[in-house]
Amino acid sequence: MFQPVYLDHNATTPLAPAVLAAMLPWLENLCGNPSSRHEYGRRARQAVDEARQQVAAALGAHPTEVIFTSGGSEANNLFIKGAAACRQAGLIAVSAVEHPSVLEAAAQLTTRGWRLCPIGVDEAGRIAAADYQRLLQEKPALISVMAANNETGVIHDIAALASAARAVHATFHSDVVQAFGKLPLDFRALNAAGVHALSVAAHKINGPKGAAALIVDKRLELQPQITGGGHERGLRSGTENLPAIVGFGVAAELAAQNLSAQAARLRGLRQRLESGLAALGAHLFAVDAERLPNTVYFAFANIDGETLVGQLDRAGYAVASGAACSSANPEPSHVLRAMGVAPELARGAVRLSLGADNEAAQIDPFLNTVQATVGRLRGLTAIAA
Amino acid sequence: MFQPVYLDHNATTPLAPAVLAAMLPWLENLCGNPSSRHEYGRRARQAVDEARQQVAAALGAHPTEVIFTSGGSEANNLFIKGAAACRQAGLIAVSAVEHPSVLEAAAQLTTRGWRLCPIGVDEAGRIAAADYQRLLQEKPALISVMAANNETGVIHDIAALASAARAVHATFHSDVVQAFGKLPLDFRALNAAGVHALSVAAHKINGPKGAAALIVDKRLELQPQITGGGHERGLRSGTENLPAIVGFGVAAELAAQNLSAQAARLRGLRQRLESGLAALGAHLFAVDAERLPNTVYFAFANIDGETLVGQLDRAGYAVASGAACSSANPEPSHVLRAMGVAPELARGAVRLSLGADNEAAQIDPFLNTVQATVGRLRGLTAIAA
Repeated sequence: MFQPVYLDHNATTPLAPAVLAAMLPWLENLCGNPSSRHEYGRRARQAVDEARQQVAAALGAHPTEVIFTSGGSEANNLFIKGAAACRQAGLIAVSAVEHPSVLEAAAQLTTRGWRLCPIGVDEAGRIAAADYQRLLQEKPALISVMAANNETGVIHDIAALASAARAVHATFHSDVVQAFGKLPLDFRALNAAGVHALSVAAHKINGPKGAAALIVDKRLELQPQITGGGHERGLRSGTENLPAIVGFGVAAELAAQNLSAQAARLRGLRQRLESGLAALGAHLFAVDAERLPNTVYFAFANIDGETLVGQLDRAGYAVASGAACSSANPEPSHVLRAMGVAPELARGAVRLSLGADNEAAQIDPFLNTVQATVGRLRGLTAIAA
Repeated sequence: MFQPVYLDHNATTPLAPAVLAAMLPWLENLCGNPSSRHEYGRRARQAVDEARQQVAAALGAHPTEVIFTSGGSEANNLFIKGAAACRQAGLIAVSAVEHPSVLEAAAQLTTRGWRLCPIGVDEAGRIAAADYQRLLQEKPALISVMAANNETGVIHDIAALASAARAVHATFHSDVVQAFGKLPLDFRALNAAGVHALSVAAHKINGPKGAAALIVDKRLELQPQITGGGHERGLRSGTENLPAIVGFGVAAELAAQNLSAQAARLRGLRQRLESGLAALGAHLFAVDAERLPNTVYFAFANIDGETLVGQLDRAGYAVASGAACSSANPEPSHVLRAMGVAPELARGAVRLSLGADNEAAQIDPFLNTVQATVGRLRGLTAIAA
């Protein structure tokens, strides 16, 4: 089977072999319901507990602070709607470059009396400090700012932002789905700085789809969004997805162990990609900001991003145009719009996101393919004009 | 490893080998994000589409009527909260014997101006017809009645109940999580009778945990509960749990294929279990009602159900006491309470639920074990008294 080179790890990642090995016994043999009071149920309960410890340890959290959910979108919705439901309607502030699951959940609150205020970013995708300070004076009740952006890779200093927010008694959440496994994250320290909750997802760190978590300060009042049997300390009901949760535990452990070596290696590959792309005349987005080590975001003037993605796909390279997480949505990226990028250039946006399976030997052939493809598309444009 | 005989299939089931075989390629190789516009993304999208067709076909639905969720509890919450959010607050009626995910979701609506009315059952666990008729005169906006109860196995005639509800323009939902794979279900016919939505879950039909669906009439207005990227026709956002969805598709196909042969076989085993238990002096619950072919629910007077479950577990039989789906909750079953069973007897309740892996050869040894265990516990009681 044709196996293109995968350069789209911010969309999803392959399972690490050790993760699959840990999951297999729970798929091949009867995997009990952890609520059952028999041998199979007890084994399942133990496995959930162990995975909870692994996820907690990887994030510097206590196991009781880990609320398992089915995905990052669910975790984001649980925080935003769950925290809002326990408060009088007020102001919610989220950065303009959040994942749609934060943006849409916050937008839904406006039908319940809340006011939504976006936090702007500068031309490099960084939180605009003046905007943020002005916003805090309005005393937002809830704030959500991601630790790293899925498109640009731009890192936000959530400890500093939360610390400032604490002065106005705001509850602060961060979607760390993209940062987890790429940046060190310590919930104990973040919590001390004023961060109340984090969203993480397994399938972005070589873990399985179907497992994720909200890491949450237990003093935070939160209304469950999926109610029922009272699982996850009453905050998320439903039979635990045990094989996925077991895989999440192992993936979290591996991600924490490999973090610095992996980050250094990917940063090296990224550097080569960015130098090469710049030499070919590409515009690189957000290069002035501190960014994740694995993400490259660029555009060639007058070349449509979708078209380039399609051509690279045929040539054997799986890359993304704009945000890959949303269902078929051909509008230019809301992230680039928030950064003030001209729509013509934004429509050219292509994202590369590296992962554990990428190797140095893939870089030059990829750059050669980009050069040839862009040359051909430019030729076609010249003919059409 | 010690492998007790599993008699708790209403709690969860082992993966069918064909289901695991279908899932494995998606676990072993890179499983793309179906929203990605490259080879891996397209393959993933095709696999989701195929699974959607399989689930739809097994339930007599159209693929566009299948909204994948992470579990049955999520599907129940999506219907109840999602349908309520699109209507003026009014009356919601749910049977008193529903799964906690229906009962709790409906209870949450009362904080949003809704009035909750439980529909009573008779001493055999059947919907009380007079109660239901009286209720309809109050013009409920939403009604939810499960097709078969997880504890007693009692079957409710949802087509007839929905048909009566249509006269008062109520929107009717049924949790068919326990009925699916054990009773024929045809959404086209049920929809014509007045059923607007069904909840189903893969892990109860030898499919994986982490995949389930709300089957829903597309004319029904529904507010998404997990918002974001707009997956599942905008009704459930979040990256699709592809390996689990693929497994769900195969499990649904197999369940529909094997339904009548399997039901006949399990009915035979159940008959032998019930005769044997009755001969040992057990009280059998709900025997006057039409029931699922796989479920046996009984109690021995003056013997605590939890204790009997514990003893049977040590003897190598995995069975359930009361409802197994809720987290550690030692109260007597709400189902038996609704049936008017005396609390002393309800505390003795033990459930056996058969599945594909049970065999005739397991029945006599099990009954012998029950006899010996009950005899010993009675002896202990006699000594204590």
